[in-house]
Amino acid sequence: MSLQIIPPRSGAAFELTRGQTLTVIDPEGEQVSDLVAFAREDLDEAISSGRSLDYASRIFLTTGDPLYSNRSRIMLEIVEDTVGRHDFLLTPCSADTFRIIYGHEHPHRGCHGNLVAALEPWGIGPDRIPIAFNIFMHVDVNGTTGELKVLPPKSKAGDRIVLRAEMDLVVGLTACSAEQSNNYAFKPIHYRIDG
Amino acid sequence: MSLQIIPPRSGAAFELTRGQTLTVIDPEGEQVSDLVAFAREDLDEAISSGRSLDYASRIFLTTGDPLYSNRSRIMLEIVEDTVGRHDFLLTPCSADTFRIIYGHEHPHRGCHGNLVAALEPWGIGPDRIPIAFNIFMHVDVNGTTGELKVLPPKSKAGDRIVLRAEMDLVVGLTACSAEQSNNYAFKPIHYRIDG
Repeated sequence: MSLQIIPPRSGAAFELTRGQTLTVIDPEGEQVSDLVAFAREDLDEAISSGRSLDYASRIFLTTGDPLYSNRSRIMLEIVEDTVGRHDFLLTPCSADTFRIIYGHEHPHRGCHGNLVAALEPWGIGPDRIPIAFNIFMHVDVNGTTGELKVLPPKSKAGDRIVLRAEMDLVVGLTACSAEQSNNYAFKPIHYRIDG
Repeated sequence: MSLQIIPPRSGAAFELTRGQTLTVIDPEGEQVSDLVAFAREDLDEAISSGRSLDYASRIFLTTGDPLYSNRSRIMLEIVEDTVGRHDFLLTPCSADTFRIIYGHEHPHRGCHGNLVAALEPWGIGPDRIPIAFNIFMHVDVNGTTGELKVLPPKSKAGDRIVLRAEMDLVVGLTACSAEQSNNYAFKPIHYRIDG
């Protein structure tokens, strides 16, 4: 498959077949990409941060770590990761995010709105968008106070993560729309499916 | 309302009306209680750790903090908290937890199974159980490595948390079933609804 481009502040959705790999590339650096996944055979089975973090006993996931579904089945495994820092705590940014955190009066629909639009052909509605695996998102966590700080991604131009599908999936993927997450510059995300 | 008792390793579900308070008490100390909540007017609206943590910019929530739904509406607000340490990262323990983390061959159904059973009258199935607000659960988070360690709760006998309903809710509540979470002794949880 040729390289696919997700323009700034937008999203895409596509199917992955078990055994295929998805490569997500940050072409310019410091750009986040939110990933959500659903089992193709039953779309009520969705990616679960709560199970993935519990089974890893770690909040930062990287090469070798599986991403579990809400039914505790492995959906994806990270097989390559040139950055090593992603977030799996926060929901995709949304109009509500921009209203509540940024105080915007006419908020962008954000990754949440972009994922809903991209996943519409599969009938996945807004309530079904889980906490995303926020690729390249750099959230500093203070283990003492619990404070979260969204910092610029550690990704540089050309950095990538490769995930192998462990079941047939529907995947939603964005070029993230939130200022803080992307060091206040919106850039595209590239991806490729192999296998 | 009189004091209600949730026996060790079990669960309950009940309705809360906007303005009522729910008091969750640890009668013996070191016992976790998983809480999930759904909007009574539309059960697809459910408690969301990802939104609550994002809007608080903090992973540890306590007095004054709201718990948001997946539609970014405030479901509950913490109005009193004698412990100050709870978890909002991990899914309820389940047969899968006991199988994957503990290696049990005949696993208990855990808080997940207990919540599903208790919520069955409202038609809320297993895929709809979100990351719970894990009252009194003490998860140590290493902000550098990301490592999570489940430690004994900081709650002592008689400690409590009080939550005020900000909308009409269906609530599921457990006396948690996982060894690590409760310092290897399963105890009851008490609760009371006022207002």
